[in-house]
Amino acid sequence: MTDLLRRDVALITAGVDLFADAAEQQAARVTRVDWLPPMPGTQADLATVAADPRRVAANADAVRRVQSVRALLVDVVPAADALGLGPRDVLHAGPPIEWARASGPLRGALMGAAVFEGLVDDPDDAPALLERGEIHLDSCHHHSAVGPMAGVISPSMWVFVLEDPATGRRTYCSLNEGLGKVLRYGAYSAEVTDRLRWMSALLGPVLQAAVRGHDPVDVTAILAQMVQMGDEGHNRNRAGTLMLLRELAPAMIESGFSSDQVAQAARFVGGNDHFFLNLGMPACKLALDAARGIAGSTMVVAMARNGTDFGIQVSGTGDTWFTGPALVPDGLFLGDYGPQDANPDIGDSAITETAGLGGFAMAAAPAIVRFVGGTVADALANTRRMYEITLAEHETFAVPVLDFRGTPLGIDVTKVVRTGILPQINTGMAGKVAGTGQVGAGLVTPPAEIFPAALRALAAAAPGPG
Amino acid sequence: MTDLLRRDVALITAGVDLFADAAEQQAARVTRVDWLPPMPGTQADLATVAADPRRVAANADAVRRVQSVRALLVDVVPAADALGLGPRDVLHAGPPIEWARASGPLRGALMGAAVFEGLVDDPDDAPALLERGEIHLDSCHHHSAVGPMAGVISPSMWVFVLEDPATGRRTYCSLNEGLGKVLRYGAYSAEVTDRLRWMSALLGPVLQAAVRGHDPVDVTAILAQMVQMGDEGHNRNRAGTLMLLRELAPAMIESGFSSDQVAQAARFVGGNDHFFLNLGMPACKLALDAARGIAGSTMVVAMARNGTDFGIQVSGTGDTWFTGPALVPDGLFLGDYGPQDANPDIGDSAITETAGLGGFAMAAAPAIVRFVGGTVADALANTRRMYEITLAEHETFAVPVLDFRGTPLGIDVTKVVRTGILPQINTGMAGKVAGTGQVGAGLVTPPAEIFPAALRALAAAAPGPG
Repeated sequence: MTDLLRRDVALITAGVDLFADAAEQQAARVTRVDWLPPMPGTQADLATVAADPRRVAANADAVRRVQSVRALLVDVVPAADALGLGPRDVLHAGPPIEWARASGPLRGALMGAAVFEGLVDDPDDAPALLERGEIHLDSCHHHSAVGPMAGVISPSMWVFVLEDPATGRRTYCSLNEGLGKVLRYGAYSAEVTDRLRWMSALLGPVLQAAVRGHDPVDVTAILAQMVQMGDEGHNRNRAGTLMLLRELAPAMIESGFSSDQVAQAARFVGGNDHFFLNLGMPACKLALDAARGIAGSTMVVAMARNGTDFGIQVSGTGDTWFTGPALVPDGLFLGDYGPQDANPDIGDSAITETAGLGGFAMAAAPAIVRFVGGTVADALANTRRMYEITLAEHETFAVPVLDFRGTPLGIDVTKVVRTGILPQINTGMAGKVAGTGQVGAGLVTPPAEIFPAALRALAAAAPGPG
Repeated sequence: MTDLLRRDVALITAGVDLFADAAEQQAARVTRVDWLPPMPGTQADLATVAADPRRVAANADAVRRVQSVRALLVDVVPAADALGLGPRDVLHAGPPIEWARASGPLRGALMGAAVFEGLVDDPDDAPALLERGEIHLDSCHHHSAVGPMAGVISPSMWVFVLEDPATGRRTYCSLNEGLGKVLRYGAYSAEVTDRLRWMSALLGPVLQAAVRGHDPVDVTAILAQMVQMGDEGHNRNRAGTLMLLRELAPAMIESGFSSDQVAQAARFVGGNDHFFLNLGMPACKLALDAARGIAGSTMVVAMARNGTDFGIQVSGTGDTWFTGPALVPDGLFLGDYGPQDANPDIGDSAITETAGLGGFAMAAAPAIVRFVGGTVADALANTRRMYEITLAEHETFAVPVLDFRGTPLGIDVTKVVRTGILPQINTGMAGKVAGTGQVGAGLVTPPAEIFPAALRALAAAAPGPG
């Protein structure tokens, strides 16, 4: 012991700063290790899942499968055709929910969709239909689809069709309407439904002609470029939108539509910095769906919110949703709106974080703090912290300012439970009153309790000891 | 003294690391100050210029004038019309130079221009005309113009016309041809001149119709956005090119040209990530020209290279060029090319660094190290080091990862001489043999001696003591 103290003292400390501070003041070299206790009551399940002999290989397989997917934009078609939706079938974001429990923005979007589909003339007549179950609701995720915010997809809306060429698997997403008074934020005025009608009458068909007259657009490659250009793929999609327009503009011009029609479509796409979000999201779902249903894998394959519940699905537990109450984001508000106006977290867009983008890639997009709040240091710290709860670094999404380190990929339920660190999501905020539209953007996490619940199910599915 | 040492010791050290290291090992708090001796033989001139009572206000005025300029793209026209060039007038990059001293890439570009203008049929016949002075050479900068690399502008080439709406002042630049075998890198094969003919026959007229059918494009605003999107405006212009295409595409579509012609033009612009460079450069010149001729100002208003000489112009010394031999950049090479193939530094594009972009804004564009070499840490350090030799931080060009700090703006001759820190330029590299084209991209500085020469002229122009 005396000999030990005679040499230069080097310490590794965990948990209590007092000791580390005192040692540093005495010129000792101190390496501080962040350490947090596991979530309460999870020790037994953590031990069971840690002992699951399938776990390591299953997670490696899950990560490998996600990274092997290439998402190509191959078509643009009405949702009725792509998804087989009947005239009264409507999809929504997040885990399944019935009208009675639906939040304001989801209600507003469903009312608008009922008008848009001609099921009612007056949006105020829609709730009665919805209460009686005469409009059939289901989760986008149950139909290989995703939708931002309320995520409402009705049969007459057009959707992007993405395909993984190696497997032929497909995913789908609606076309982005822009910001402000839009259906996905719960607005349903005539301005909203008129825009949806123009999108179905002109934008969809022009994009269809362009996509069909063009080699498939490599959405995964655009996502990789975006991360070099200040986008994180959830609330910054500026470079992505511009690259999509560059890819499609020549084919739009040659589509046979009139100059006036093509110019209208080009102005609409170019005027909405978020247009690409609705391509990034299904690309992320296409990648993550490849990792569904791997026995023993503790990797999250979906995070989604319906404005009331936040749900996750985990590879090793099939299609079970683990849900808890969605939290209200903390962020920046538009105009006179404030925290009291914000609905709890809503939308399938957290699929981007699940795939290593969005809140997980904020270090690549420091300018996003002007949209969602916080400091540049926070943006860098968010990405760094997510490495603590993920299985891998993305091979395709490299963050220049982190020396081209891949983004944190593959949320591991066991790591979340063991550290208490929750996935960091950045998101738009919808007004909680139906009809309001967007009120801001900010940062949010899932409710903590859904991870121990998922861990419990993983433990139940693990082979018993011995 | 005893009392001093009894308290915690805090040291500020400059120059010699040995002492600082020893003190740090004894747990003293040490703040290291970078300090470099002034360039040799400059003390008297530094003292004279430092004592010039006009200097501080003149530099503040220079910075203010630069930042007050807005560069709008207002037209696209043939150089003959915009610049009043006669059929045998040809402009080139950098300070003035005659054929006899011209480097390979400038010679190659001049030979290609002679073919393009129909002055010769065979490029090998051009040198005789040029030797005899039958083609008249002058610097772009003498005609409110700039050109990248060889920077050759001949009368039949089309140019962008940028205007500052507050003053009506205008600057001009050629249209960017793309990378590889292109005139500005000294290539002059039929492929090069054919492309130039297509650009004059179709691209220029389509862009003219689009610009004339559109509100002026705010090039300064695009530059500000680019710095948020991973471009530094010299060797990364990806986001800028995409934003330009977004701005102009609808008006191109409505220009009255055929779908095939508009699609050709859109593919050409969208297929060249450097297309916007030729808008950023004249925007920088438009801003810097506002600061020319301010008595007592030590701010550099132009840095330019002709492939043989590197020249600067300084606000307080009028239109005098201070020149020295251009250095060979250090960087990454294409294919089998190596350092022995590279021509010394060439082009007017260092106007971007002079205006706070390019090498000065590399912290905003860490991905550029994949193009010009070095590490991400170098990219950040380059920007940070440039604050040491500049007068201000740009109010419009904010670097997100530096907490939105403005880029270093306004190279101060006195600060360069006092610290020995040279402006950091990132640049393309042309093959030194005429006809080669691009061989790589890298980093370079001006020759050190031009700054003491400029300082000497500033000292000579300063009011004497007393």
